[in-house]
Amino acid sequence: MEIRPRDSAPGWQRAAYSVIFESDTRAGRAFDIVLLAAIVLSVATVMLDSVRRINAEYGPVLRAVEWLFTGLFLVEYLARLLVVRRPLTYAFSLLGIIDFLSTVPALLALAFAGGQYLLAIRILRLLRMFRIFKLGQFVGQGEFIVSALKASRFKIVVFLAAVLMLTVVVGTLMYVVEGGEHGFTSIPKSVYWAIVTVTTVGYGDISPVSILGQTLASLLMIMGYAIIAVPTGIVSAQMATPAPQTGPATPPPPAYRQFVCHVCQAPEHRVDAEFCWRCGEKL
Amino acid sequence: MEIRPRDSAPGWQRAAYSVIFESDTRAGRAFDIVLLAAIVLSVATVMLDSVRRINAEYGPVLRAVEWLFTGLFLVEYLARLLVVRRPLTYAFSLLGIIDFLSTVPALLALAFAGGQYLLAIRILRLLRMFRIFKLGQFVGQGEFIVSALKASRFKIVVFLAAVLMLTVVVGTLMYVVEGGEHGFTSIPKSVYWAIVTVTTVGYGDISPVSILGQTLASLLMIMGYAIIAVPTGIVSAQMATPAPQTGPATPPPPAYRQFVCHVCQAPEHRVDAEFCWRCGEKL
Amino acid sequence: MEIRPRDSAPGWQRAAYSVIFESDTRAGRAFDIVLLAAIVLSVATVMLDSVRRINAEYGPVLRAVEWLFTGLFLVEYLARLLVVRRPLTYAFSLLGIIDFLSTVPALLALAFAGGQYLLAIRILRLLRMFRIFKLGQFVGQGEFIVSALKASRFKIVVFLAAVLMLTVVVGTLMYVVEGGEHGFTSIPKSVYWAIVTVTTVGYGDISPVSILGQTLASLLMIMGYAIIAVPTGIVSAQMATPAPQTGPATPPPPAYRQFVCHVCQAPEHRVDAEFCWRCGEKL
Amino acid sequence: MEIRPRDSAPGWQRAAYSVIFESDTRAGRAFDIVLLAAIVLSVATVMLDSVRRINAEYGPVLRAVEWLFTGLFLVEYLARLLVVRRPLTYAFSLLGIIDFLSTVPALLALAFAGGQYLLAIRILRLLRMFRIFKLGQFVGQGEFIVSALKASRFKIVVFLAAVLMLTVVVGTLMYVVEGGEHGFTSIPKSVYWAIVTVTTVGYGDISPVSILGQTLASLLMIMGYAIIAVPTGIVSAQMATPAPQTGPATPPPPAYRQFVCHVCQAPEHRVDAEFCWRCGEKL
Repeated sequence: MEIRPRDSAPGWQRAAYSVIFESDTRAGRAFDIVLLAAIVLSVATVMLDSVRRINAEYGPVLRAVEWLFTGLFLVEYLARLLVVRRPLTYAFSLLGIIDFLSTVPALLALAFAGGQYLLAIRILRLLRMFRIFKLGQFVGQGEFIVSALKASRFKIVVFLAAVLMLTVVVGTLMYVVEGGEHGFTSIPKSVYWAIVTVTTVGYGDISPVSILGQTLASLLMIMGYAIIAVPTGIVSAQMATPAPQTGPATPPPPAYRQFVCHVCQAPEHRVDAEFCWRCGEKL
Repeated sequence: MEIRPRDSAPGWQRAAYSVIFESDTRAGRAFDIVLLAAIVLSVATVMLDSVRRINAEYGPVLRAVEWLFTGLFLVEYLARLLVVRRPLTYAFSLLGIIDFLSTVPALLALAFAGGQYLLAIRILRLLRMFRIFKLGQFVGQGEFIVSALKASRFKIVVFLAAVLMLTVVVGTLMYVVEGGEHGFTSIPKSVYWAIVTVTTVGYGDISPVSILGQTLASLLMIMGYAIIAVPTGIVSAQMATPAPQTGPATPPPPAYRQFVCHVCQAPEHRVDAEFCWRCGEKL
Repeated sequence: MEIRPRDSAPGWQRAAYSVIFESDTRAGRAFDIVLLAAIVLSVATVMLDSVRRINAEYGPVLRAVEWLFTGLFLVEYLARLLVVRRPLTYAFSLLGIIDFLSTVPALLALAFAGGQYLLAIRILRLLRMFRIFKLGQFVGQGEFIVSALKASRFKIVVFLAAVLMLTVVVGTLMYVVEGGEHGFTSIPKSVYWAIVTVTTVGYGDISPVSILGQTLASLLMIMGYAIIAVPTGIVSAQMATPAPQTGPATPPPPAYRQFVCHVCQAPEHRVDAEFCWRCGEKL
Repeated sequence: MEIRPRDSAPGWQRAAYSVIFESDTRAGRAFDIVLLAAIVLSVATVMLDSVRRINAEYGPVLRAVEWLFTGLFLVEYLARLLVVRRPLTYAFSLLGIIDFLSTVPALLALAFAGGQYLLAIRILRLLRMFRIFKLGQFVGQGEFIVSALKASRFKIVVFLAAVLMLTVVVGTLMYVVEGGEHGFTSIPKSVYWAIVTVTTVGYGDISPVSILGQTLASLLMIMGYAIIAVPTGIVSAQMATPAPQTGPATPPPPAYRQFVCHVCQAPEHRVDAEFCWRCGEKL
């Protein structure tokens, strides 16, 4: 895949940009893989830190590792801001906000010895893993799944809305039938049970005891078992249908380039594209 | 989408009809959205009212809100009766009955301080939510799912009948095998267990203990795991098959109108239709 | 649907045969529906009889009803033997054996006050319900499902064999990992747990406690979640593929007749068939 | 299927090779079936041996049977080494390693009275069961499933990666929401719960108690219920799509031969192949 030089940035910035943001040079790919490894290790550290026994023994070590990774991510974030041509556009893009959330608040959380509530912020950096889909053979596959889901989104929303209505109605009936006992202490609780049942999860923390309740539950289970066919059918049909634009689009793929816009990170630009297809920035 | 004027109703009635029953003018769409919000809020009120702790603290407030919403629905119901040309036809249509059930009995339930058994009646107004499928992009999607399910209904009935027979036979065997113990105290109870198992819900409130019982349960689980493929396959195949009438019917869609019959609420009439396709009423 | 007269039987036998075995005359259809109702009621009686509380109160009544139904089925069985041209062929066909099992042993079970072990024999008459698939619109649908399953049977067997091997291997690992505790007391028990898990039933009567065990269990669950796609895909693909023989077979359906062979009960014979397609008996 | 003689081996070796490695002569098929039966019996012995009650009573018998089977497998393994032209290539192929693992370490495990940890090694011989897919009608079916999975492997990896990220994020949130109680004692534990939930297994050993936790759990369940459609859709679409190479490849199948390479065991060689397609060995 040829690397089209961008003329508008100074040399060192272009090189750094290529390493940090793109993944079709050897250096860029290596950077991405190291970054992904760092993210996984950092998340693993946070997870281990939450285990009481490990925390008691290795607490200080884990904390040091956390400082290290957070420092690295801070450096990386600043570097990104530096080499991107329009820092604000990047900073307020989705990836930019996730990048920010995994550094600055994490630093604050570490510094001010926050309770477990700050853990959630640090774990958010896992979302950066979605960068993995920029790598090689995954690009097209992720796009394929996302586009199939996007094409069926209205159908799925209609389906989920119908399922939710069903759970509310059946949940209320169960609340009445079981007389507020056996865990069915309120309608929201009963609706929670109905969701647990219709999705076939079935914890068993709440389960009907009366005969009428068990009959109603059986009906709900069988419905849940049968209607799982609906979303599956929707997505299968969507994926099996050859997308109308892929027919004539068979030649383009080699004519696309495997790098992302330096402003909004949109991937896959035409070889002959002059502007980003998403943000319109000059490439 | 053009609004074909109906000549047979006085001006104010036509305007009110358009707002209340149709959803392709701005006013009609706004009315529908406000109505849906009111339904959701009203159902949420009933649900919260059932939580003991909330009821103890905010009981009177919730009750007042309930009165308010029920009053609004009553006004809306009367307005519908007023502007529809044939009130009785509407009143005895499915939507009309649901509309009635969410107002008058709810009023009675509120007035006569009914126990929790009247909750179920009030929650039924959730069914009015299905009006949501009249809105914009959902119309076609809901229709698509419903028509795929309709086309496969006999296959699904056959499948569910076979599954039910399987659960009765396996349930009886388990009753015999477990000797009426470990929760398998009667055949209906054992059949309930078999349904819980074959649908992969698996509460665990009843589970086999004997070796023979666990073997039989394993067989049932594997069957349940494999035969889930059947309804899914049916619906997938149905959805993937291009409906024979959509081929030649590709031009019509723009030639349909996005309003419902003013008598029976049947949707989607041909632009050139003179009579309702469902009730035959002159449009 | 025309009724082709069979010349080889005396008049009364032919009439009785048509009523008892066929379902395309009004009398035949009525007979089938009454029979199905009797089967359902009889099975319901056996089920209710197993509930201790009901048995204590209505035991004698239920027993009398059981005698009644078993008597009816006996009469029906003898009538079938009488009007069929080759009684032995019918008696040893699948349907004939089921018909026998639901009468004579049930009579013995009733007469000799057998324990609950004889219940299973009486409940077997539920299998006669499969006669329902001879009725009208269900014939083709049941055939469709069965033929799709038949066409994919080798693929499903391969899949289930692979799943079973997986459960044996993972079950053994869990037995080793959990050290024979937390319910994993033997390899068969652990394999039972693995089946409960991979099919996503998840009773929770046995669940891993050690960290390694929970990690292994997580892997198994994710595999179970992903590989459910395999049987579903197989059946979906099978059902979506237009069967090669239905292409040229589009004319035949109206050319088939909706009655069963008077010897082996095979359904759907060609209008111009001279011999049964299954047993070769002259029609 | 014709058996092409291989000229390069002495007569007795060629005959033994044909029996042991191939399955398209009567002797070869018989050998394979006996071998599969021995594997199943041997695995059953190990499984029964782990049940305390059976071990106490029949321990010595089971141990003797185990010695017998392990001895048989050793003889078989040595025979394989003997008749294969390049023993080392076979010994280090996947099947060769599995064959080795089910004999020598099992012998050691038996001899040195190893604890239950050595069971896992003996049970590994179950993997030899995969030889079953070399038999007759299963060859193509297994290949079909494996190739469909292979073709969708990147999509499935992307999907599983997304699901895993979802479980880590939701697991962490639940840890925070439930405040480290009700079983959510650490982030890894909570992630385990999230996996149990999103795959709809639902043991119920850990389940949320707080209202916020149950709401979050409901969202996760509904997501799990909806996204199961994704892998299913992927595999269905893959299987429904006629593989591009099967179109023009319709003639080849009869032109393939049903025997495996005598060195690396690769199956299905072209009738006119001179060299193994996998290891390049002269056929």
